[in-house]
Amino acid sequence: MKVDVAILNGQVFNSFTKRFEKKHVSIIGDKFYYISPDEFERLEVQEVVDATNQYIVPGLIDIHMHIESSMTSPAIFSGAALAHGVTTVVADAHEIANVCGMEGLEAFFSQPSVMDIFYAIPSSVPSTTPELETTGGYIGVEEVKQLLQHPKVIALGEAMNFNGIVNEPDSLIRQIIRAVQKERPFMPLEAHIPRVSSLDLAKFLYAGLTADHTHQTPESIYEKITNGMFLELQKKSITPENIRVIVENNFYEYVAFVTDDVMADDLLDGHLNALVQLAISCGMPAEQALYCTTYTPARRMGFQDRGAIVSGFKADFLLLNDVESVEIAAVYKDGKLIHERGNEIQYPDEKPHFPRHFYESVQCRALTAKDLRIQVKASEKAIVNVIQIAQVGTFTEHVQREVAVVDGYLDWENSGLALIVVMERYGKTGDIAYGFVENALVEKGAVATTWAHDHHNVMVMGTCAEDILVAQKQLVDMQGGYVVTQDGNVRAVCPLPVGGIISDAPIQELGAQLKEVRQAMVALGYRNSNEIMSFSTLSLPVSPVIKITDKGMMNVRSQMMIPLVEGERN
Amino acid sequence: MKVDVAILNGQVFNSFTKRFEKKHVSIIGDKFYYISPDEFERLEVQEVVDATNQYIVPGLIDIHMHIESSMTSPAIFSGAALAHGVTTVVADAHEIANVCGMEGLEAFFSQPSVMDIFYAIPSSVPSTTPELETTGGYIGVEEVKQLLQHPKVIALGEAMNFNGIVNEPDSLIRQIIRAVQKERPFMPLEAHIPRVSSLDLAKFLYAGLTADHTHQTPESIYEKITNGMFLELQKKSITPENIRVIVENNFYEYVAFVTDDVMADDLLDGHLNALVQLAISCGMPAEQALYCTTYTPARRMGFQDRGAIVSGFKADFLLLNDVESVEIAAVYKDGKLIHERGNEIQYPDEKPHFPRHFYESVQCRALTAKDLRIQVKASEKAIVNVIQIAQVGTFTEHVQREVAVVDGYLDWENSGLALIVVMERYGKTGDIAYGFVENALVEKGAVATTWAHDHHNVMVMGTCAEDILVAQKQLVDMQGGYVVTQDGNVRAVCPLPVGGIISDAPIQELGAQLKEVRQAMVALGYRNSNEIMSFSTLSLPVSPVIKITDKGMMNVRSQMMIPLVEGERN
Repeated sequence: MKVDVAILNGQVFNSFTKRFEKKHVSIIGDKFYYISPDEFERLEVQEVVDATNQYIVPGLIDIHMHIESSMTSPAIFSGAALAHGVTTVVADAHEIANVCGMEGLEAFFSQPSVMDIFYAIPSSVPSTTPELETTGGYIGVEEVKQLLQHPKVIALGEAMNFNGIVNEPDSLIRQIIRAVQKERPFMPLEAHIPRVSSLDLAKFLYAGLTADHTHQTPESIYEKITNGMFLELQKKSITPENIRVIVENNFYEYVAFVTDDVMADDLLDGHLNALVQLAISCGMPAEQALYCTTYTPARRMGFQDRGAIVSGFKADFLLLNDVESVEIAAVYKDGKLIHERGNEIQYPDEKPHFPRHFYESVQCRALTAKDLRIQVKASEKAIVNVIQIAQVGTFTEHVQREVAVVDGYLDWENSGLALIVVMERYGKTGDIAYGFVENALVEKGAVATTWAHDHHNVMVMGTCAEDILVAQKQLVDMQGGYVVTQDGNVRAVCPLPVGGIISDAPIQELGAQLKEVRQAMVALGYRNSNEIMSFSTLSLPVSPVIKITDKGMMNVRSQMMIPLVEGERN
Repeated sequence: MKVDVAILNGQVFNSFTKRFEKKHVSIIGDKFYYISPDEFERLEVQEVVDATNQYIVPGLIDIHMHIESSMTSPAIFSGAALAHGVTTVVADAHEIANVCGMEGLEAFFSQPSVMDIFYAIPSSVPSTTPELETTGGYIGVEEVKQLLQHPKVIALGEAMNFNGIVNEPDSLIRQIIRAVQKERPFMPLEAHIPRVSSLDLAKFLYAGLTADHTHQTPESIYEKITNGMFLELQKKSITPENIRVIVENNFYEYVAFVTDDVMADDLLDGHLNALVQLAISCGMPAEQALYCTTYTPARRMGFQDRGAIVSGFKADFLLLNDVESVEIAAVYKDGKLIHERGNEIQYPDEKPHFPRHFYESVQCRALTAKDLRIQVKASEKAIVNVIQIAQVGTFTEHVQREVAVVDGYLDWENSGLALIVVMERYGKTGDIAYGFVENALVEKGAVATTWAHDHHNVMVMGTCAEDILVAQKQLVDMQGGYVVTQDGNVRAVCPLPVGGIISDAPIQELGAQLKEVRQAMVALGYRNSNEIMSFSTLSLPVSPVIKITDKGMMNVRSQMMIPLVEGERN
């Protein structure tokens, strides 16, 4: 028998004993053929790789992630993440779906990539309802049924409409879940369940949702796992306290690590490999951390052909120089060497190809000075509702503040608050909504983006009208992206011309632009562990507790609109 | 919120902590709703069950079994096995497929049952090839593609053609596997891999097969699991030595218990529940034994809605009086009480309904005295090839014996061997094949059956021509089943009129008939731990090492035919 490649003398990770064992690995075509402690005497080997002093582990598998979070195309993402050892992802392309609907998803499905990219159906497009936010695309029951036919679609992505799931048996999300259960009863159904416990948690499970990837605490991990949830732990959930719960209770089988969102600049430094390393540094045995990034995610998704180094599985694997630090020496996909440590990362030669009109998606008029003068009934002072941001994470608090009224208008530029404006940009309603934000900007300036989860309308926030206007104009002119202005000038831009959310630049260029945007935001006094994520989720009406869409500010749990000025309808 | 049933104060099995916890369980409709340590103060309960001093465990799930092995219909099987706590099975109906083909499978799929019966595609019908055995049905690639469309079909059943899998890349079984991988890549592919190891095992895995349910040893368990096989352990594999390997290596996640075959008379005494008990008595912690009969089999099959007591899962559960002995007090299916200890088992009122011609499936002429006179070229003595049966298990050995020749004919009636005759019975070729069997019958008499795995032709074995003729005639007259004759008289019968393999009698009657057949076989001197299984698998050409079909005796591994008389073609 002829084998194509033999990797000899390496320490091979056995997913079942959770040990490294000195073995020889042979490959025919794109699959592992025979893994044996003995030399391959009966086999004729074409190519031999000596892996003495190296560790052979399965390719990493990320089952909850959004390619658009890296603001790049599937092909470019594939190149970058493969170099970090990620060989399979299950992407929930709900950002492109919010902007371009089914056409956006189909455009993603058809992008070429070396990595295997499977898809979860974006189950919440829009994240709430068309009454609460305007989006370019809409995924209803019929669209879901159509997507279920696609061979790359293998899961239902994060269901996140809390009210729809818990309180409304006939909500769109409940209808979607039932449609999937009927047509593909063996498909995993994923949810987004932040801060939900006891009876409410039971209601998520009762609806059929069996996985969660939101921020966990030791208590939530214990409660969710022992009640039947599979947990997908992202970076913010990988803490020593959380890892301890998993280790002490031997919960490895019910846990996987996932990236969820990775910014373009972070993607240059690492991806899922960084989370393995983090989990180890938080106290998880290295073998278990690898298991939870290869075997358990594959099994959760029902893959029959990957997640371990065994005969018949896809020959997706990494050679590591060191296990604890997860230092990757080489990455193999489908039995082929894709990347070696120290070499340039391979990207596709051509720019990603998307339909022409994806590049003309920001249909929004220019903001005017008049738009920013907010008339109120109150005479001297008005009580306004305010989104208070935190220095860590994306959750917000709802507070009220007094703002002086001058000549019947809010004197917001001197209030210490930032004004935030969201403009519908799909050419549908032309609505404009207003809010205030506390703890955002200290200096005079503005930030504007179309990368505003999940509806991706035009969102601009500033402490000064002029900077807001300049930022908004620049954003529309470049058909989306990120803009920071100060003193009436543009300080940093990151163009995202594809649907207003995706760059078509090389990833290094994109990363550099994003870094400049961050620095410009910091210069304005923005203080958050992830400035861009913090700002870009002020628009996400499923993330606690107060957010803003093109319809206005709202309480996320109750989905009640919150007026800008207390006691006045606006 | 109104809940239908609340089971209060029981010790609930938590599949994730592997502990019993005092909790209250509530049910809405057919699903668990909320499981809580607190009283259901916020819920309005319709019906309360007090489970104080009882243990609540998930319904048992059997993912590798053949309903026909109990010689009964799905509806009757469902009634009997439910009483033993089995709430879901994945049946491989390859016996009815061998007899009636696609029509047989469709007839099974459409039978009503209280239990959830899913199906694995019979992947080896015939078990070898039409050249080596004649069957009534044939499952080829096109039939498999058609079966993949059926919602009850969730796996590929045991692929068992060793040569086809290991040595012939374009064999039918390899084509079937590829078709399933292409059309349903997330479907589990099951195999039948007795005594296969190292490179041959790798070839099974390389072909895509990832589970095995055959007889295991401590060595085979360790080798198969650490090479990526999921193991389904049937009764003969549940031994203290085997259980020790699983316990010491913490292999629980890669193991499930399955029944494979349960005879009708045994079914009255127990089913999968007996295997849980056996595993516990062999040293497996009770919680892990329950886990491997509920959670791991459900996950292996990709079920999203069963295998644990968690919100949203099917309310299939048992109340146990005692865990170690698995004493079942009550069985609930879909939230409804189905059976209580001490009560009569509920069976359907009507006889099973099958197409009329299923009752006219034995198309075979009467055997004559002339058929049993075997002419040979040798003059005084002939060397004959013999199937030597063992006292335990179904494997055989190939031996050669001398038989006297009288007037040019074998004097087999005085040879100490039994003559075995297999007659094609589907009206296709009318072939008759002959063999000899050692260690089978001591007394003068005969045994005949159409329940001859897997081709189910007419098979009759005897030490006396007259008894053979009487048995064969009786078998054809009653359109299949089991017959034992002695001294020219019928001693016991078990009619199986549906396709020659299934009874339509109540299970108690069937069980009693089968017991009589066993006793009559024992009276003839048949010595085996399971007389019926031993005889009925003499015809199975994938079970080592020498077996007989309507084409003749053959070496199972090489698939080479073996002549009756050494040196003579017959």
